[in-house]
Amino acid sequence: MQTFKLTLAYDGGAYSGWQLQTGQRTLQGALEEALEKITGEFIRCSASGRTDAGVHALGQVVSFRSTTQLPADTLQRALNAELPRDMAALAVVVAADDFHARRDAKRKTYRYVIDDGPVRDVFRRTYAWQARCRLNAEAMQEAALLLVGTHDFSSFETSGSPRESNVRTVYELKVARPAADAIFVEITANGFLYNMVRAIVGTLAEVGRGVQPVDWVPQVLAAADRCWAGQTAPAQGLFLVDVVY
Amino acid sequence: MQTFKLTLAYDGGAYSGWQLQTGQRTLQGALEEALEKITGEFIRCSASGRTDAGVHALGQVVSFRSTTQLPADTLQRALNAELPRDMAALAVVVAADDFHARRDAKRKTYRYVIDDGPVRDVFRRTYAWQARCRLNAEAMQEAALLLVGTHDFSSFETSGSPRESNVRTVYELKVARPAADAIFVEITANGFLYNMVRAIVGTLAEVGRGVQPVDWVPQVLAAADRCWAGQTAPAQGLFLVDVVY
Repeated sequence: MQTFKLTLAYDGGAYSGWQLQTGQRTLQGALEEALEKITGEFIRCSASGRTDAGVHALGQVVSFRSTTQLPADTLQRALNAELPRDMAALAVVVAADDFHARRDAKRKTYRYVIDDGPVRDVFRRTYAWQARCRLNAEAMQEAALLLVGTHDFSSFETSGSPRESNVRTVYELKVARPAADAIFVEITANGFLYNMVRAIVGTLAEVGRGVQPVDWVPQVLAAADRCWAGQTAPAQGLFLVDVVY
Repeated sequence: MQTFKLTLAYDGGAYSGWQLQTGQRTLQGALEEALEKITGEFIRCSASGRTDAGVHALGQVVSFRSTTQLPADTLQRALNAELPRDMAALAVVVAADDFHARRDAKRKTYRYVIDDGPVRDVFRRTYAWQARCRLNAEAMQEAALLLVGTHDFSSFETSGSPRESNVRTVYELKVARPAADAIFVEITANGFLYNMVRAIVGTLAEVGRGVQPVDWVPQVLAAADRCWAGQTAPAQGLFLVDVVY
């Protein structure tokens, strides 16, 4: 029995999210089905975190245990042959026996893509939030800096998911304009509350539209109450970029 | 009555090509339907050329005549509201009365995207040809230069489309690697035979894979016989980039 660490890219558009759900097409389900075809074993997979319906990954990390004798690179090629075309195994390595993708994750980075050009980009319609007006990226970056650090992020959590603590540490939160009509929001943290990135993006977008001033954002944070924040930005703009262990 | 010139972007993945076909979803059909909703008139549209099923456009040009009193920029906004999300009106201007998008086109540029990384890019699976092996872009560029000029391109035409002449002038044919795992083939010509770009790309790919030498390409051209060329590259990697009048 060995523990494997798999790095996975996927277009989440056709899936009801990561986690297994009866009667739904899920990423975990598609992966476990491919692994069963390859190894003949039923294999349970753990991801660094459960991405929601429609959310994408450039580098999701998954751990699983198997008795397979296949070398890791053969397993990777077999996965790329068996997985649906909207999923790809970027790397497979043998990990420490007790490696666990969720429990051992130290920090994760998400990217959120906003398309704010005057006309929609038809090729990014499932990979970006198509904003209806031009956003001020500089004001968004200024506001974003006020969220960096260790805080209670309750204002940015969709309710209905009780946890021991809503305190998380955001190491980095950058707003950039890599192209004339696109804004990237990149956030690195030691953990994320439910819908936290999308709620932060929706809040920063209020500042970007000029509806709220920069110093409204620390007020939202201090309130520790979801009613204060902006709307939750839609799923299709969100990408899990990488996970550090 | 005015003549309008419309520049259109579309993701062709969900369409049976440009041209109207009974019982099929076509780009022309979707556009004429949107124009009818906006103007109340039945309006026939002409494109610079008919793109095939699955082919995309960054800048297709379309002409049509209408009695609408709407200013061109209002018409553009109305089109973007009425068109499906995978089509976008990039520009609408009033043109000379006798302007015709197909007849008046002087040159067109197509881009073909090949993804030749070791693992497929899930986000480009409908916007690139996913080659199964690494291609030599330098050898492809060398061969491509041998196709520039005025030639009989019969070897690169899918049969079944009789024309007066199969002579066309290719002004430019560039092979570039804009990213580590992507190759762009860009071709500008005064006109294209049926499937000409995809047959040229399939032929250059034979050279890129090392199956054929560079000097095989002028032999294919000289043969003026479709049996000589490489396979027709798949539709989803092809983009109509722009049209010059």
